[in-house]
Amino acid sequence: MTTMPINTAISRFSVPALADMPQDIRDRLLAVQEKSGFIPNVFLVLARRPDEFRAFFAYHDALMDKPGNLSKAEREMIVVATSNANGCQYCVVAHGAILRIRAKNPLIADQIAINYRKADITDRQRAMLDFAMKVAFEAQLVDEDDYAGLAAHGFTEDDAWDIAGIAAFFGLSNRMANVTRMRPNDEFYNMGR
Amino acid sequence: MTTMPINTAISRFSVPALADMPQDIRDRLLAVQEKSGFIPNVFLVLARRPDEFRAFFAYHDALMDKPGNLSKAEREMIVVATSNANGCQYCVVAHGAILRIRAKNPLIADQIAINYRKADITDRQRAMLDFAMKVAFEAQLVDEDDYAGLAAHGFTEDDAWDIAGIAAFFGLSNRMANVTRMRPNDEFYNMGR
Amino acid sequence: MTTMPINTAISRFSVPALADMPQDIRDRLLAVQEKSGFIPNVFLVLARRPDEFRAFFAYHDALMDKPGNLSKAEREMIVVATSNANGCQYCVVAHGAILRIRAKNPLIADQIAINYRKADITDRQRAMLDFAMKVAFEAQLVDEDDYAGLAAHGFTEDDAWDIAGIAAFFGLSNRMANVTRMRPNDEFYNMGR
Amino acid sequence: MTTMPINTAISRFSVPALADMPQDIRDRLLAVQEKSGFIPNVFLVLARRPDEFRAFFAYHDALMDKPGNLSKAEREMIVVATSNANGCQYCVVAHGAILRIRAKNPLIADQIAINYRKADITDRQRAMLDFAMKVAFEAQLVDEDDYAGLAAHGFTEDDAWDIAGIAAFFGLSNRMANVTRMRPNDEFYNMGR
Amino acid sequence: MTTMPINTAISRFSVPALADMPQDIRDRLLAVQEKSGFIPNVFLVLARRPDEFRAFFAYHDALMDKPGNLSKAEREMIVVATSNANGCQYCVVAHGAILRIRAKNPLIADQIAINYRKADITDRQRAMLDFAMKVAFEAQLVDEDDYAGLAAHGFTEDDAWDIAGIAAFFGLSNRMANVTRMRPNDEFYNMGR
Amino acid sequence: MTTMPINTAISRFSVPALADMPQDIRDRLLAVQEKSGFIPNVFLVLARRPDEFRAFFAYHDALMDKPGNLSKAEREMIVVATSNANGCQYCVVAHGAILRIRAKNPLIADQIAINYRKADITDRQRAMLDFAMKVAFEAQLVDEDDYAGLAAHGFTEDDAWDIAGIAAFFGLSNRMANVTRMRPNDEFYNMGR
Repeated sequence: MTTMPINTAISRFSVPALADMPQDIRDRLLAVQEKSGFIPNVFLVLARRPDEFRAFFAYHDALMDKPGNLSKAEREMIVVATSNANGCQYCVVAHGAILRIRAKNPLIADQIAINYRKADITDRQRAMLDFAMKVAFEAQLVDEDDYAGLAAHGFTEDDAWDIAGIAAFFGLSNRMANVTRMRPNDEFYNMGR
Repeated sequence: MTTMPINTAISRFSVPALADMPQDIRDRLLAVQEKSGFIPNVFLVLARRPDEFRAFFAYHDALMDKPGNLSKAEREMIVVATSNANGCQYCVVAHGAILRIRAKNPLIADQIAINYRKADITDRQRAMLDFAMKVAFEAQLVDEDDYAGLAAHGFTEDDAWDIAGIAAFFGLSNRMANVTRMRPNDEFYNMGR
Repeated sequence: MTTMPINTAISRFSVPALADMPQDIRDRLLAVQEKSGFIPNVFLVLARRPDEFRAFFAYHDALMDKPGNLSKAEREMIVVATSNANGCQYCVVAHGAILRIRAKNPLIADQIAINYRKADITDRQRAMLDFAMKVAFEAQLVDEDDYAGLAAHGFTEDDAWDIAGIAAFFGLSNRMANVTRMRPNDEFYNMGR
Repeated sequence: MTTMPINTAISRFSVPALADMPQDIRDRLLAVQEKSGFIPNVFLVLARRPDEFRAFFAYHDALMDKPGNLSKAEREMIVVATSNANGCQYCVVAHGAILRIRAKNPLIADQIAINYRKADITDRQRAMLDFAMKVAFEAQLVDEDDYAGLAAHGFTEDDAWDIAGIAAFFGLSNRMANVTRMRPNDEFYNMGR
Repeated sequence: MTTMPINTAISRFSVPALADMPQDIRDRLLAVQEKSGFIPNVFLVLARRPDEFRAFFAYHDALMDKPGNLSKAEREMIVVATSNANGCQYCVVAHGAILRIRAKNPLIADQIAINYRKADITDRQRAMLDFAMKVAFEAQLVDEDDYAGLAAHGFTEDDAWDIAGIAAFFGLSNRMANVTRMRPNDEFYNMGR
Repeated sequence: MTTMPINTAISRFSVPALADMPQDIRDRLLAVQEKSGFIPNVFLVLARRPDEFRAFFAYHDALMDKPGNLSKAEREMIVVATSNANGCQYCVVAHGAILRIRAKNPLIADQIAINYRKADITDRQRAMLDFAMKVAFEAQLVDEDDYAGLAAHGFTEDDAWDIAGIAAFFGLSNRMANVTRMRPNDEFYNMGR
């Protein structure tokens, strides 16, 4: 009975060296490192595929950095709630950190990840997360009643699109992180606590 | 007892006029129209959000137009199988048409959509679709046994990434199509039959 | 790495020769061939069991050819929606063809198979299909609220029985088609398009 | 707070009087009454639809009374296991009674209904029930491995068809019993104990 | 093809001899035997772990023997309904017997086990069982609407706790019975019929 | 559009004052407070029911404080993995803290909660958690193959019971925490990080 050593690689796929990446991708990684003090593994793991990398982060930025009625913290709530339901370690840990910082609340990320229905959130945020979960797990059933429910909490048509877009995009991200066995950086676990 | 008229709008969200779209997006639409004879509704529906539109199609092209061991038809098989399981009318109808054309087989799209396990495909294609479905529906359970299963059919590490990427990207596409109530163009139904 | 040839047999079970079938069954097959120009495989596959064949088609005719408030096209809608959810290639392809013909609508079968909630159907037909799906997948939960919902759309008690009967009977049919690996005839794919 | 009286009608649909039934159906009911001492409610409830009644019992007899390698008790085991999983009170109670009598075992029906994996049955019967449950709940996944598994226990191709046919037919029966709210006769509960 | 003999042991784990049990546990077993005429196997199987045995029965008695608005029969209804849904042979058979006796109704246990929605129970009991099933299978979704639903049938806050506690405790019991392959005593099957 | 204030009560049920609790329960609470610096809310919430409180903690201690081959950290791993799958905020947060301390590993609790299949654990611990999850979610399917799988990693019969017992007991705990809306103490979130 021998035991396999625990695997702590950042991906089950090989990861390119910084020097071998296209200039624009290397630049983005160095900028992130400059700002955050480390390079989140999602950048390294996806750099194996430069075209997909560029599309992925363009999509990410289009949804997460755009202006709109959803606060930055609320967008991260959507990521954290759907990512735990998808069993995605990377996204819950990394975006949990961002959520704690954005919400200035050290408890909120764990609460939402485990069971957002019992988290310290407003009714409006609860309705937002109910819709996000329906998009993530049974989008084929979404209908006008769901939009009416959002409108009753003051969400506009564009807010509804934003919620759906974030849930759908991170569904893609969750799947790629799970398939590549993407490892969350140790730095994320304690940020914002 | 009155009956609501049947809604045949191409989206439940408003769609911008061609004249109001950014130049690069309008150019892409016109190029597609030139080539196909019509504008697939996905271009019109997503044009409401130019940045997301650009990222979406960049991602699409990075996965579907890249070189690699998966044939063009095989990539469409992945789209069709996962999209029916996600209840996505637009993607099954539109990509079913493309699959019929790429595979030069008028029967294959319906067979794969309904139950790919009984379709006229090779064992290798069956293994490809089994993996794609696992990525689409239980990516959190993907492990090294799945990769070994693919390798036994001659799939490389990059092929595995391609299969996963396509399943994950169209999971996003399926959700947006369902949420926007995106209507397949009538033209798709009979193409390649 | 050898690949198994693709299996295009009409059933995984042996199929009797026309000459070896009982007279009444052979007569029915020849009559169908006369009318349709080909023998749908369900007749050939089930002929292996004459008594079950007779009961199956007697049941089928009792539900599908009887008078009543459900139109012929509506009955086929029930078959197509539940059969795709059951992953039954034969029934979706064969009854999709009949639905297109009965409804004089080349798009309706694919729409209903993939996601009837977004098909070009009336509210009444939507309620009919919601009930049929509940019978097919969670009949143990059917209660008086479901019947009240049907009545609100003008369905009578006998209409409700018809919907349930069709959903239940094709559940049997779907299972036998999947278990026997019943292959849809090529002729069905393009009928009514 | 008023309470509705408990409803003990034998069906939520009206049931025809014996005198109003077609002669052949009345004859069958009287013959059953003669033999059993009472008329099982399934005969009364389905008599509302004479053509369906005839097809239903013809199908039933073709599967349950035919010669073959499955014993009468084994066929009832299939009914009881799948019917409890479908939440069908009538079929578990009525066929549980028949199973106890056929197997000359007062315990076996309850054991199989609740969890056949822990019932006093042989490995061969366990394999038979595993296959029956797959047909009842995921027939779209049945493949040649399942048939090989049956063959390893000595089941022939025709035995496999019999198991599948019984599981599929009682799936229809379970749905009709649930939808009609068919009540098991009191007589069944204690038969064979 | 040899067949394994049918295993009728009362547990897949070894069971201590009465003489080897701690005095207090042996005393309880003898008292039960004195009262019932036999020792229910749950006492023998759990006696392998004296501390867990004591806690298990203390918890059981705290919920099942306490005063309160739920009748003894109603508490057993909760056990029977949730235990069949958990596939627990021991609990359905043993508590089905107790339910028949407590309710003085030979039919009620089988009705509730198979499908409590069609059992001869009051609306209030139906609401009680709906809540118990939600606790057993999706407790993470329980919210104030569920409590309001109970209150509408006259259940107090403490009654709600009782229902939840019984469903939760027998969820533990069901899992231990299934894991230990705990066999129901033959005596239970016919008690109260 | 008014918004309900966020509810941060420690339970949706009223909680007794320390002074009103039975002496033995108050003593246990004070001892815990002395040791930990605060009273975990589970003690306060369950104190509403003294008899259940005593049985609950006796059961807890019998499983978590007993000697055996499972380390204290491994027992907490079982709690954390199954509790997140059950959506139980209290148990993941509180036992996540204990796990971090017991394992002297600040990352392990979040990794296991979100997806234990990708956590920094040994193959043996992975097998332990696979079994625990099967007990928690499909105990009716547990069979001798599962025990053989555990034995292959060196687990004894008693270890198997321990794993099952912990998964089953915390299934009860998860349900009561969800039903009572039990709030994790703020202190737990950062312990051991």
